Amino acid sequence: MMDTQLTIDTLLVRAEKYFTKKEVISRTSTGITRLTYGDFAKRTRALASVLDILGVKYGDRVGTFAWNDHRHLEAYFAIPSMGAVLHTINIRLSSDHLKYIINDAEDKVLLIDQGLLPMIENIKDEIPTVEAFIVLSDNEELPETNLKPIYHYEKLLKEGNINFSFPDNLNEDDPAGMCYTSATTGNPKGVLYTHRSIVLHSMMLGLADTFGISESDRAMHVVPMFHVNAWGFPFASVWFGTTQVLPGPNFTFNTIGELIETEKVTITAGVPTIWIGLLNELKTNMYDLSSLRFIVCGGAAMPKGVIRTYQEKYNILFVHAYGATETSPVTTLSRLKSYQQEMEDEDKLEFISKQGIPVPGIELKVINNQGEVEKNGKDMGEVLLRGPWITDHYYNKPEKTAEAVKDGWLYTGDIATVDFEGNIKIVDRTKDLIKSGGEWISSVDLENALMAHEGVSEAAVISVPHEKWQERPVAFVVKNATYGKVTKEVLLDFLEPQFAKWWLPDDIIFINEIPKTSVGKFLKRKLRNDFKDYFISG
Amino acid sequence: MMDTQLTIDTLLVRAEKYFTKKEVISRTSTGITRLTYGDFAKRTRALASVLDILGVKYGDRVGTFAWNDHRHLEAYFAIPSMGAVLHTINIRLSSDHLKYIINDAEDKVLLIDQGLLPMIENIKDEIPTVEAFIVLSDNEELPETNLKPIYHYEKLLKEGNINFSFPDNLNEDDPAGMCYTSATTGNPKGVLYTHRSIVLHSMMLGLADTFGISESDRAMHVVPMFHVNAWGFPFASVWFGTTQVLPGPNFTFNTIGELIETEKVTITAGVPTIWIGLLNELKTNMYDLSSLRFIVCGGAAMPKGVIRTYQEKYNILFVHAYGATETSPVTTLSRLKSYQQEMEDEDKLEFISKQGIPVPGIELKVINNQGEVEKNGKDMGEVLLRGPWITDHYYNKPEKTAEAVKDGWLYTGDIATVDFEGNIKIVDRTKDLIKSGGEWISSVDLENALMAHEGVSEAAVISVPHEKWQERPVAFVVKNATYGKVTKEVLLDFLEPQFAKWWLPDDIIFINEIPKTSVGKFLKRKLRNDFKDYFISG
Repeated sequence: MMDTQLTIDTLLVRAEKYFTKKEVISRTSTGITRLTYGDFAKRTRALASVLDILGVKYGDRVGTFAWNDHRHLEAYFAIPSMGAVLHTINIRLSSDHLKYIINDAEDKVLLIDQGLLPMIENIKDEIPTVEAFIVLSDNEELPETNLKPIYHYEKLLKEGNINFSFPDNLNEDDPAGMCYTSATTGNPKGVLYTHRSIVLHSMMLGLADTFGISESDRAMHVVPMFHVNAWGFPFASVWFGTTQVLPGPNFTFNTIGELIETEKVTITAGVPTIWIGLLNELKTNMYDLSSLRFIVCGGAAMPKGVIRTYQEKYNILFVHAYGATETSPVTTLSRLKSYQQEMEDEDKLEFISKQGIPVPGIELKVINNQGEVEKNGKDMGEVLLRGPWITDHYYNKPEKTAEAVKDGWLYTGDIATVDFEGNIKIVDRTKDLIKSGGEWISSVDLENALMAHEGVSEAAVISVPHEKWQERPVAFVVKNATYGKVTKEVLLDFLEPQFAKWWLPDDIIFINEIPKTSVGKFLKRKLRNDFKDYFISG
Repeated sequence: MMDTQLTIDTLLVRAEKYFTKKEVISRTSTGITRLTYGDFAKRTRALASVLDILGVKYGDRVGTFAWNDHRHLEAYFAIPSMGAVLHTINIRLSSDHLKYIINDAEDKVLLIDQGLLPMIENIKDEIPTVEAFIVLSDNEELPETNLKPIYHYEKLLKEGNINFSFPDNLNEDDPAGMCYTSATTGNPKGVLYTHRSIVLHSMMLGLADTFGISESDRAMHVVPMFHVNAWGFPFASVWFGTTQVLPGPNFTFNTIGELIETEKVTITAGVPTIWIGLLNELKTNMYDLSSLRFIVCGGAAMPKGVIRTYQEKYNILFVHAYGATETSPVTTLSRLKSYQQEMEDEDKLEFISKQGIPVPGIELKVINNQGEVEKNGKDMGEVLLRGPWITDHYYNKPEKTAEAVKDGWLYTGDIATVDFEGNIKIVDRTKDLIKSGGEWISSVDLENALMAHEGVSEAAVISVPHEKWQERPVAFVVKNATYGKVTKEVLLDFLEPQFAKWWLPDDIIFINEIPKTSVGKFLKRKLRNDFKDYFISG
């Protein structure tokens, strides 16, 4: 068989040749921009040509610091197709982390949304590898800035070559993309994606049994494009000629509702926070969501009640996916098997709210000290992953690599059970798991149970050191403002029938907000730190 | 990213772990056999273990000479998963070709359906590489045979190890399968499939925009498993946990109709002859086809009238696919783009009856002396293909390879036009094209037009040497027995409004049967040979 390489330029070429008329719909600061794939491809080639002139060479890292829009999408294809590495930078990082990762990646050029310029201006003297700054702007002229040398994206593109030819000697194992983990501890860790990993992951996203992204879809990318390539949706969408809807800068739940309605979005993906927020938004503003066939949810467990509401009230199917920056990210997902369609709705919901079985291409096992756990839905173990879109190392961090990659498997640090159908259910992070008197308690199970109470908006459960039991659970709850009085006693009574007595939190503490990471995950490390002496001193 | 290899054993392992209860339904000489994927996997591992004991080593070719049933499916996975090469042998070959390919492939072991033993017995002394014969039989005891050494498949399996471990050092570029072209001229040519090509092709078959083979499907493999791996469906079906229906030996149109109804088949694939035959069968025997969502058709162009009947009368979508033994086989397919759904039914039919656009992973161009043809639906050129499941050589045949593979592209020998949507339409084989007075005439277009007449059952149009015009078309027609009188004049009148005058055949000759190859394609070479002096001598 031919040794044709699985490279990203071929995805673009397919859209360019066969889906010329299909659209990329992009919300910008000045309104909605509609671009055909034909024009998108020309602009992408022009971008590659000007980066080439600016001196970007094979293997160079080019950083993007941007929201989800058409220019960011052009960078997604221009940079890897010319043999360089697309480094998508999280716009919510602290200055320290921002400096750290730009220096660690040694970015040569940065593409920056105009609205985000101040964050880069703040650190401009501490990122010496950057040789050029390009402003992604809806305005005709460059803004005032002290960045140098500075270029205007649209003006550069006008000078670019819309027929630029990509190199034909790319290897599928060449690096194509780069993303840093959100780092709950220590410095962010870089993960390099290859052409091969991105192409295979994209193909997986089109499978009828995964998300079935197709030409007839209108996919909206709510997941930030700086967060694991927006879960791979932009790459797959271009390849399959899917209409794309990009929600642009500073979008709100209102923006999301509006775009779903006006652009007739059929599929979208995001973290639970988004879908919980949209549900709240729907209480005051009605949007027509009937075009949606599918919402993909990941990053954290979705409360069952929310899934139920979307399904019953809006007839929208929820699919849970599981993955991480290290895994491109999709590795498992929950869809009912055909013979499970006969089950009662509540039983279906139970399965749908799990993380599911591995997608084609991914191998998975869940292990503890006794080896692979039984498929009994009870025994807990760590999730190990293997496959062509799972990382085998952290960039520049051999010691972190050695901790995470052993015997060809990625040790995810996630704790899960496995049911008789092979579905995994993430019950905790290894470091969040509560070890009480030698037994394990899942903080995630307790959180989900608490969040199922109508009076609870958010809940985090942490392990607090304890003299007698080594560790005991303590819950932190943000009240739902629209609900009546909620007390510790009410919530404990609510939990009691659902868990063994020794699982119940020793305390429930009400707070105004749960500390979060830059991608919206609970930052339990902070709570653990603040409350580490809660029982010891008490 | 991990350098995890794309190998066939991982497909089996996924079915074994996650679709244990799903079924392989196999029609045998003694009735329907139902096997869960759990049991199927055990039998497959047992088969590999006994082949191992029989001395099959990495890279050895193991031949199968069998109909579509569960045992053949076990061979599909056991042989490549242990590192050997699955050589599926066409059961309709002549003795000469049979001898030729077994010797060319140097098969070490042959797995033979009991009913097909005589064909191998006939040549037993002329296939010296074969060290063992295994009879695939529904009977408990071995039949009388002069083949030696001879083994009984089911008895071997009982001695096998159902926990046999496949080697973990397979490389995705290792050969996994082998199939010979049906050879309209000269000896058959061998094509080697690799683990990578089969895995990538399988993933492509699961895309929502191709055939969307999924867990919820009940796929029936009508395409012989000795013919380009039944178009790859068995591999994809196992990977995705699809229920499989295997129609077994000597099936008829009646068998097909019955199985669709009783096993609630949702997707199936085959050459036009099958679907035309089933339509005739339906005139006398009614079957409930309502479970079918999709029929994949390939190997030759499907008459529009047949597509229309299936769609209008039975609500079954037809999808045309295009490919060859050299291409694994699927490379293009015809599905309407979303914005084409608004068209009139007849316009849709026009598009659906083309071969379509390349599937993700495949690059295609259509070239003639002037370079790539215009996308005008008129200019004709040869179809060139490139991709990870396109062959780069013929086994043991460097001179044939040099003719077909040039500059990294496969020259298919198929002539096509390209429309403004990028759809190709195969209008001829390079060697069947008629060159009349310097202009090209498509024999396939004329055949399709003739077959659209109700009085015509089959039609073949060939090029006959001509003194004045170099070549002129002559048509051969098999009459439809159930229709009234059909004459040459009637058919010429029927063709006249559809074509330029100089396209019309110089003669229409009625015959009882059109000569065909072993896979049912028109053997025009024979007609061309028989009629080469038709104009010269006349």
